[in-house]
Amino acid sequence: MAILGGTGNIGEGLVVRFAAETSHTIIVGSRDASKAADRANEYESRLTNHGIEQTIDHADNTTAAGDADIIVLAIPPHHVGDTIEELVDQEVLTGQLLISSVVGMQGDELGLHFDPPSVGSVTELVAERAPASTATAGVFHNLATDRLADLDADFDVDTLVVATDEEVRQQVIALVNELARIRALSAGPLANVAEVESVTPLVITIAGYNDNRHDVGVRFT
Amino acid sequence: MAILGGTGNIGEGLVVRFAAETSHTIIVGSRDASKAADRANEYESRLTNHGIEQTIDHADNTTAAGDADIIVLAIPPHHVGDTIEELVDQEVLTGQLLISSVVGMQGDELGLHFDPPSVGSVTELVAERAPASTATAGVFHNLATDRLADLDADFDVDTLVVATDEEVRQQVIALVNELARIRALSAGPLANVAEVESVTPLVITIAGYNDNRHDVGVRFT
Repeated sequence: MAILGGTGNIGEGLVVRFAAETSHTIIVGSRDASKAADRANEYESRLTNHGIEQTIDHADNTTAAGDADIIVLAIPPHHVGDTIEELVDQEVLTGQLLISSVVGMQGDELGLHFDPPSVGSVTELVAERAPASTATAGVFHNLATDRLADLDADFDVDTLVVATDEEVRQQVIALVNELARIRALSAGPLANVAEVESVTPLVITIAGYNDNRHDVGVRFT
Repeated sequence: MAILGGTGNIGEGLVVRFAAETSHTIIVGSRDASKAADRANEYESRLTNHGIEQTIDHADNTTAAGDADIIVLAIPPHHVGDTIEELVDQEVLTGQLLISSVVGMQGDELGLHFDPPSVGSVTELVAERAPASTATAGVFHNLATDRLADLDADFDVDTLVVATDEEVRQQVIALVNELARIRALSAGPLANVAEVESVTPLVITIAGYNDNRHDVGVRFT
């Protein structure tokens, strides 16, 4: 499993959780291969401190994607289009499951707002730019990322899964359910993902406007 | 407190919960005064069956609004603009707190989607059409409405509060906190409400795509 942008906030949490709690081989991807290496070493040390001996691989994003069975996009939204085009140009998309956790947001003095690309969502942009046969999904948008990256944190949050079809959706739900603290719920086809992505600026806004909340997740009850 | 559209789904839940759990005088409003009367009687009977003797008043929407200190809009989204204009024309808005729980949605074969008015949200439309001095808020958008209306239901959900200023926001949070099962969190100024309203089609979509979930609420954790 390659986490592209595995050096960033959400990427960090996904890398350490999947490395700590599952048997997937994890590759930290970054545009800068040496940054990927530094962060992978740092994550390994953190796992070691928790008594977990786990090798974390690293590479530039394109190499990482080519070596993986599952590609998770955790990169900034404005890099998504170019990154997918690069993966296509380099012919590294050869049947992997392609997952987006990316959300377009725009801040102003009042708060943070959903700011999707013109196709309606980042996940749909990914599906549009990837080869038509690519199994594409959106998940991991609205996590409490600080707690996700903190292996000592005790928390339970939901994540919503959209995908190109029901088979891919079930595959992603099974993948999420390998993690102890995150429950996957289906939100149906890719067409429903704008409302899912839109929750990300909302949880950040809630964190900003309520005392004692700096890292907010969602539970659907 | 007048619940305009108190005969509908979300209106029903708000009427019975506020009548059962608080000391507010509740007025069921409807465009059709006789429908308001029928439903108010029905709600009273339901409360009586729960050992609660509580009179529920009723009137057409405009009369109900004029007689209330708090006006809650629980009407269909396409009636909101006209309803506010009617309240303005009839000069019944005289300093009441004006609250919107309304969300614009549009369904297709794949799911239900956020479909706001051009100003960006129904709550902002309400604020735009009401006199500038009107204290306006948005709340009660993403409730599990069936359980809200069922006094036997055991549930705990959050609702997000936006308002014209911090004082109004705190007033609405205090109002919500009179209810036992709903926790209020601040989402800041009205400018942040699109992402709040957008959660409503999402919880309905989640109810449709996951087994054993037909009435979904949200908890921010």
